[in-house]
Amino acid sequence: MKGKVVGLLVVIALLVGSGGTYAAMALFQDDSNGGSERSVLNNSESDIDSEELTKINKAYELITDRYVSNVDQKNLLDGAIKGMLDTLEDPYSVYMDPETAEQFSQSLGSSFEGIGAEVNMQDGRVTIVSPYKDSPAENAGLRPNDKIMTIDGKSTEGLDLYDAVLKIRGEKGTVVKLGIQRPGVSETLEVDVTRDEIPIETVYSDTIKKNGKTIGVLQITSFSEDTAESFSKELKKLEDQGIDGLVLDVRNNPGGLLNSVSDIAQEVIPGEKPFVQIEDRKGEKQRSVSSLKEKKDYPIVGLIDRGSASAAEILAGALKEAGGYELVGEKSFGKGTVQTTVDLGDGSNIKLTMYKWLTPDGNWIHKEGIKPTVKAEQPSYFYVNPLNTEKTLQYDQNSKQVESAQVMLKGLGFEPGRTDGYFSDKTATAVKAFQRTNDLSVSGKINEKTAQKLQEKIVESIRNPENDIQLETAVELLAK
Amino acid sequence: MKGKVVGLLVVIALLVGSGGTYAAMALFQDDSNGGSERSVLNNSESDIDSEELTKINKAYELITDRYVSNVDQKNLLDGAIKGMLDTLEDPYSVYMDPETAEQFSQSLGSSFEGIGAEVNMQDGRVTIVSPYKDSPAENAGLRPNDKIMTIDGKSTEGLDLYDAVLKIRGEKGTVVKLGIQRPGVSETLEVDVTRDEIPIETVYSDTIKKNGKTIGVLQITSFSEDTAESFSKELKKLEDQGIDGLVLDVRNNPGGLLNSVSDIAQEVIPGEKPFVQIEDRKGEKQRSVSSLKEKKDYPIVGLIDRGSASAAEILAGALKEAGGYELVGEKSFGKGTVQTTVDLGDGSNIKLTMYKWLTPDGNWIHKEGIKPTVKAEQPSYFYVNPLNTEKTLQYDQNSKQVESAQVMLKGLGFEPGRTDGYFSDKTATAVKAFQRTNDLSVSGKINEKTAQKLQEKIVESIRNPENDIQLETAVELLAK
Repeated sequence: MKGKVVGLLVVIALLVGSGGTYAAMALFQDDSNGGSERSVLNNSESDIDSEELTKINKAYELITDRYVSNVDQKNLLDGAIKGMLDTLEDPYSVYMDPETAEQFSQSLGSSFEGIGAEVNMQDGRVTIVSPYKDSPAENAGLRPNDKIMTIDGKSTEGLDLYDAVLKIRGEKGTVVKLGIQRPGVSETLEVDVTRDEIPIETVYSDTIKKNGKTIGVLQITSFSEDTAESFSKELKKLEDQGIDGLVLDVRNNPGGLLNSVSDIAQEVIPGEKPFVQIEDRKGEKQRSVSSLKEKKDYPIVGLIDRGSASAAEILAGALKEAGGYELVGEKSFGKGTVQTTVDLGDGSNIKLTMYKWLTPDGNWIHKEGIKPTVKAEQPSYFYVNPLNTEKTLQYDQNSKQVESAQVMLKGLGFEPGRTDGYFSDKTATAVKAFQRTNDLSVSGKINEKTAQKLQEKIVESIRNPENDIQLETAVELLAK
Repeated sequence: MKGKVVGLLVVIALLVGSGGTYAAMALFQDDSNGGSERSVLNNSESDIDSEELTKINKAYELITDRYVSNVDQKNLLDGAIKGMLDTLEDPYSVYMDPETAEQFSQSLGSSFEGIGAEVNMQDGRVTIVSPYKDSPAENAGLRPNDKIMTIDGKSTEGLDLYDAVLKIRGEKGTVVKLGIQRPGVSETLEVDVTRDEIPIETVYSDTIKKNGKTIGVLQITSFSEDTAESFSKELKKLEDQGIDGLVLDVRNNPGGLLNSVSDIAQEVIPGEKPFVQIEDRKGEKQRSVSSLKEKKDYPIVGLIDRGSASAAEILAGALKEAGGYELVGEKSFGKGTVQTTVDLGDGSNIKLTMYKWLTPDGNWIHKEGIKPTVKAEQPSYFYVNPLNTEKTLQYDQNSKQVESAQVMLKGLGFEPGRTDGYFSDKTATAVKAFQRTNDLSVSGKINEKTAQKLQEKIVESIRNPENDIQLETAVELLAK
């Protein structure tokens, strides 16, 4: 077994996605879709010595010969590779077996059919990093950090990310039942998500008038192959309209391709400091500097939240440290590494963390996130848990469900007295007021109809751009 | 790499412990302590083919050469073995690296210094299977299914079982701070445990007088090497006293050596049916039949709970199905497999699940548990969460802490009106009554002093044998 191994194919596109494995569900961000230039990795410095390999072989034989049940040998060897990657304690370094890699490359197209959410692995469970804008996942109320405990009633325990994603995906129009464990909620939530075609549009453009000024808003939902081109086009359109300021919204943007975010940074970040630095294992840094000579003649504000990760954080860091622009919102996710996908020759591949990226000032924000310069949080009803409409909630009850209802009432302007889950007199009064306003029979109890109406009103409120406090804050900064 | 591998050393002692890895903390149950007869496993049926091995080597090289940080190569290869074992999805099949195996064999003695709890790995976290009787773990209030999230403030994420156990252990008299996640409790609990010498006594004997009859009680806390001998001696003593009935208490007994439970079964189970059947991977069964000709001339009742696992379940199953005896308590843990430890030659070893064990009637109780014939649960205050004494609890508050206090008040006979965490008028009245009875200043609020007194009284109640409803039920069955 001594001797150099040749023929490792490296897909050159560097990945800066929050999930590392987010590609799983956001196919257009899949590595195989990146610059598919391939090169031969030929500089192996180390081999397994034969004694160690003998030990692995021993363990392999023992397990296949003596384990109480029959063992799938291929699975066992894939396990060995996964086990090696596990020792890195890096959720972004992952193995895809040939079958899984094949299924993913098959689905590479202009769209895919699924629920539209970025996922990764946390504490052994598939976890939502962020749902896509207007996706089935978002519409069903899934949120960052939701742990998927069951898929169609079956436990996800022991399931790896890719197998889990394949089970979540499926034909448009079909329903997948997810059992969700949400931080701070003790019961498992059952959420039905109707799968849909997930489009690959990644740039949304809009203008907002404020104080007589026109503010452009460019929302980037992820950094895929075509993102930079769309960005360029949309920015041009806004500039042609003569905007007085620009909001770059990368909230809930899980990242994507390094090339993509680099091309975008070149358009808006002036070239004094590098907009990003890529550091290899030896500590050598490659600095990327924009060719843009001067700042834009309008001010820019970045918009970030806890769902902004990786490539989104590169852009945010560049805006803040190289551009000197304000960042509005919440602390970002904190993913400061870059992955490369390496084909193992038999169709399987390893996506491996090979680099760190640093901000213009040389900060490594991994597990830290980027802090906004102006903190702004959405109202708490943006994050409220859905109500189980089957059980009537009423006076003197005490539960998480009551708590959710109280947060909703409060969000809608009906003061419930408290939001700790105890259904007080004041809560009943608030329910009555809500029922009166909405032509429901006035009982002070939250029955199925009242619960449904509450949720309907909350969804309306969340969708109303006027309630997007973070965006409002950014626009006000630009329009003063 | 083709060719047979010889020299796998098999430690013959079969392990039937709930943790599989419970040995970690209960050293006397460690496999290496078992019958240390060794034999050579020479019948390998399968080798890794060289193409697959090349792939593992490729992955190995890629990771060591290109990963963003330096990689410990030995760790990587241990990871490969762990990764193979992980594919089995069997928490009882585990790898111990040479260093860990060495540390464990060093500590093999008549006692060890630690907290005294059986642990295993669940959802990637070290989890309490059961604390030992009168151990620091039990006295600090640790319970089955408590997940250890932090040890001395450091996260256990990514830590394997052995590393975690080594961190929990330590010199007698020193304190380890554990951050506990308890099912149904949303906050992480901070528990300080003062380490102690954990003795290896595994059999406790007692007699109880009831209705003019003398009932013997033999409690077996685990099945270690000396357990059968102690059992035999204590049983003889009880029989010499002329007992009218015998309770065999295997509550919170996580299991141990197959030999040990077999020797004990031989003493009390009559030999018509096998007391246990060991089934290998091919489905061949080895039936163990007791040489005891007739039933004992006194009735026997087994006592089980959710902490009774593996070897304890073998004994319980034998009592129920081969002896026709009653089982009192709660459904047991449900571990129906047998492990053997195999030395890999370099000091490391694999504990591998090689057999199933079946009850006398051929039932496999894995993940099912054994049902008692007479269900009996301890009062709910036996399982109450400790109070955080720093924060005063009072009227109109609503929290898990209030819930705990209500369960305690109720357990002590002071009716708090409700036990759902809402501090009502009635709860305040109950607190006042408790304060009056215990010479505390009567405020109706649970301040530090009242909280401490509540906990003191609860511990007293739990320790009072009269409140052990399960034991009482067993004794009544025998003494009627």
